[in-house]
Amino acid sequence: MGILNAIDLKQKIKKSDYNARMEKLEIKLGQLERKALENKVPITIVFEGWGASGKGRQINELLQVLDPRGVKVYSTQVSNEEETYRPFMWRFWTKIPERGRLAIYGRSWYSRFIVEKLDPMMSKLPVDKAYQEVNSFERQLVDDGHVIIKFFLHISRKEQKKRFKQLEKNPLTSWRVTDYDWKKNKQYESYGEVIEEMIARTDNEYAPWHIVSAQNWRFATVSVFEKVIEVLEKKLASLNKKTRTKAVALPPIPHSMLETSDLSRELTRKEYDRLRRVYQKKIWEIEHEVYLKRQSVVIVYEGWDAAGKGGNIKRLVRRMDPRGYDVFPIAAPNDIELAHHYLWRFWIKMPKAGHFAIFDRSWYGRVLVERVEGFATIQEWQRAYREINEMEEQMANYGTLLFKFWIDIDKDEQLKRFRDREEVPSKQWKITDEDWRNREKWNQYRDAVDEMLYRTNTDYAPWTIVESNCKLYARIKTLRTVVKTLEKHLIKH
Amino acid sequence: MGILNAIDLKQKIKKSDYNARMEKLEIKLGQLERKALENKVPITIVFEGWGASGKGRQINELLQVLDPRGVKVYSTQVSNEEETYRPFMWRFWTKIPERGRLAIYGRSWYSRFIVEKLDPMMSKLPVDKAYQEVNSFERQLVDDGHVIIKFFLHISRKEQKKRFKQLEKNPLTSWRVTDYDWKKNKQYESYGEVIEEMIARTDNEYAPWHIVSAQNWRFATVSVFEKVIEVLEKKLASLNKKTRTKAVALPPIPHSMLETSDLSRELTRKEYDRLRRVYQKKIWEIEHEVYLKRQSVVIVYEGWDAAGKGGNIKRLVRRMDPRGYDVFPIAAPNDIELAHHYLWRFWIKMPKAGHFAIFDRSWYGRVLVERVEGFATIQEWQRAYREINEMEEQMANYGTLLFKFWIDIDKDEQLKRFRDREEVPSKQWKITDEDWRNREKWNQYRDAVDEMLYRTNTDYAPWTIVESNCKLYARIKTLRTVVKTLEKHLIKH
Repeated sequence: MGILNAIDLKQKIKKSDYNARMEKLEIKLGQLERKALENKVPITIVFEGWGASGKGRQINELLQVLDPRGVKVYSTQVSNEEETYRPFMWRFWTKIPERGRLAIYGRSWYSRFIVEKLDPMMSKLPVDKAYQEVNSFERQLVDDGHVIIKFFLHISRKEQKKRFKQLEKNPLTSWRVTDYDWKKNKQYESYGEVIEEMIARTDNEYAPWHIVSAQNWRFATVSVFEKVIEVLEKKLASLNKKTRTKAVALPPIPHSMLETSDLSRELTRKEYDRLRRVYQKKIWEIEHEVYLKRQSVVIVYEGWDAAGKGGNIKRLVRRMDPRGYDVFPIAAPNDIELAHHYLWRFWIKMPKAGHFAIFDRSWYGRVLVERVEGFATIQEWQRAYREINEMEEQMANYGTLLFKFWIDIDKDEQLKRFRDREEVPSKQWKITDEDWRNREKWNQYRDAVDEMLYRTNTDYAPWTIVESNCKLYARIKTLRTVVKTLEKHLIKH
Repeated sequence: MGILNAIDLKQKIKKSDYNARMEKLEIKLGQLERKALENKVPITIVFEGWGASGKGRQINELLQVLDPRGVKVYSTQVSNEEETYRPFMWRFWTKIPERGRLAIYGRSWYSRFIVEKLDPMMSKLPVDKAYQEVNSFERQLVDDGHVIIKFFLHISRKEQKKRFKQLEKNPLTSWRVTDYDWKKNKQYESYGEVIEEMIARTDNEYAPWHIVSAQNWRFATVSVFEKVIEVLEKKLASLNKKTRTKAVALPPIPHSMLETSDLSRELTRKEYDRLRRVYQKKIWEIEHEVYLKRQSVVIVYEGWDAAGKGGNIKRLVRRMDPRGYDVFPIAAPNDIELAHHYLWRFWIKMPKAGHFAIFDRSWYGRVLVERVEGFATIQEWQRAYREINEMEEQMANYGTLLFKFWIDIDKDEQLKRFRDREEVPSKQWKITDEDWRNREKWNQYRDAVDEMLYRTNTDYAPWTIVESNCKLYARIKTLRTVVKTLEKHLIKH
């Protein structure tokens, strides 16, 4: 226990000194919180620590000072059903604070490493991947402007024993001390090594750990306040500097996947009708098996305007039980979505295991429309390739099967369909000036699509190009791809 | 089975007729949905029906036509943990559609009457109250501009038996037919009477039932489409008429509760410090008991600007475990909140049983600031007294203990505090021009407060006036009220 033993647990603050020091710290922290709110800085404060090290007390001390308008407190406990049926980090992604808000955790995503059985997936997941999930979560938030402050409250084995006994004496709190807690107290040394490994592997520059001597609660409180103030001051000062990380050019992409798209592929109406019936029956059967085996399925549709995404999705779900799938059409983000990390609105839509989530446009908007139209900075969309790959890997780690379809047409076909929409009264609502404007930027979009396909075509989440000049062909291709892949996958699992 | 037997189950539509009729209905429905979206009309469609009557199929037929951007499908199943720990209607209130959106239910709030064990509270709750909860839910939504369309899909006992057997033959669907389903088939007649009672007691003018002959699925689909179209057309036509329901003057209130407030009450600092310590320790103990007994506690703070709500709340929670309570400061609603019924943002904050939710301002804003400042129409705020009483009664039905504090000061005391805030640098952020503007309307607010206190001072959720010219007195009064009431309540339960 090198890291923890280096902490001086004898440090104390007397009551008389404490009140005077805290008065100043409280005013200072209140001011900084309001300034962070004005500057739309989201803040996350994590409390981990030994059992009975006083996490609840420290959180309450902060709450006395912080404006409750901006703060939400979370305590992490054994997974509930909604959580068990999603990737582990889902529960935290869905709770990230809005810009200008503050989230405080009593136990957090770190509990998966130190509280056994908290994450049922951990037994199956290589620990390296689990650390990667946690580190990429924090890096993605910090890149987005978040501040993450992580405390580990440290007490000695003897002190812990004393506190457990005190809790046990009171009938109202005795239930809080479990056999598991006593076991941990007996294994204090070896448990300490687990904690130290966790700290060492997640003590990143963008979100470092602060180990707090918590033997004396007054000392701990002052330490926590001082650290929060220090970190916030530094963050707020850095905002004024406006030093943006320079965009580093990514290496050029070696080949175009779009060029492999053979848009002459087609099906006759007769072949289509036959195959549609076959596969629609099969996908209905598979939907039931997916439910029984608690398989999680995500299907992403991206494609040119008027490529036929909507019609394609309709044929996919035509015979499915609506209780087994959700279709999420993705438009421009609303206020609440804009106030969060851009991936937040997709994380909150992750399907429950046993269900399909179908996205009509998706998180790839970041590297398509947001790139081309300048809604994202060059740093933001370049970073997004990695962020997206990391998110999709987390889905794969959990066992989610991910389909990504690029619905492809050529420029002539698009023109034909736009004109058709303008002419048929019942289709006119489908065509807007924006569609025409996007069309003028065809080549810019084409570059963005090619780069997206290349940089996010991973083993765990490959792209499928769906040639859609003939819509009938495209509909069968997506149906067949989903059916065949799931059939193979469900046999194996 | 009078109501159900009156339905002609022999009605059929041939395949050839079906396609022609549906084509027109689909175009019509698509147009109406877009128009409803433009006009910000929220729509709820409920499918109830016998087991295997084809609820899923009907929902899917609608989904083929509706713009998925606007639609969310819910299927109601056995309560999960989050739901069990809240009032029954919480799960539906949290899912009401935004203005312009559509929610479709495969089973709904009606399942509590016809699916045993779906609502564990039903055994304790008088059935009249359960019907009242459902009827007031629908009335409140319709008053807010919602459209609710309720279908009951009717099939014969013989047809149901046939369909169960078919499902059982396929190994992929056999699990869907349970012993419970077969039991219901055997008790078809008596079950039918339960259904008929439910229909009779909830067949309101604002949300009538439509019983659909579902023996032939084509006939059912056409019936459903025609009914949805009819209802939407009627609703959209009524929007153009702009006939507002006239505001009916409520009877005058017979007495003023504010006049009973004795603002001379006070405590010395010494008495305060002693009592504060006593009650803060007690509330910490009670918090643990509340958790163990899964008691749900809601505390509402309303009061004049600068009355000391924030400071009062701080002393209340000073020693509590932050994992046991949440403080919700209520400001002006955001975009997403404005797009919902005004009670939605409070329903989504209902505490999990075993926890405290503390509201710094609350749903009473509707009859205070929204009334005085004209943010709500006279119809809206007059209606709100009943809506609020109904919501609070639902909390009480569930077993929630509700405290409502009016933190009272007089006009002179407010002036003193405003001036103090302006003078002390660390308090200046607390005073804004708006506070001064509100102060000018003191008498209007006073009338609104008096009317609120009178009309919402119910047996199940009474108001407590907290005299706060002396803040110390006020803090002890709220602490003591919460402690004493909870002590009494927890002994009984």
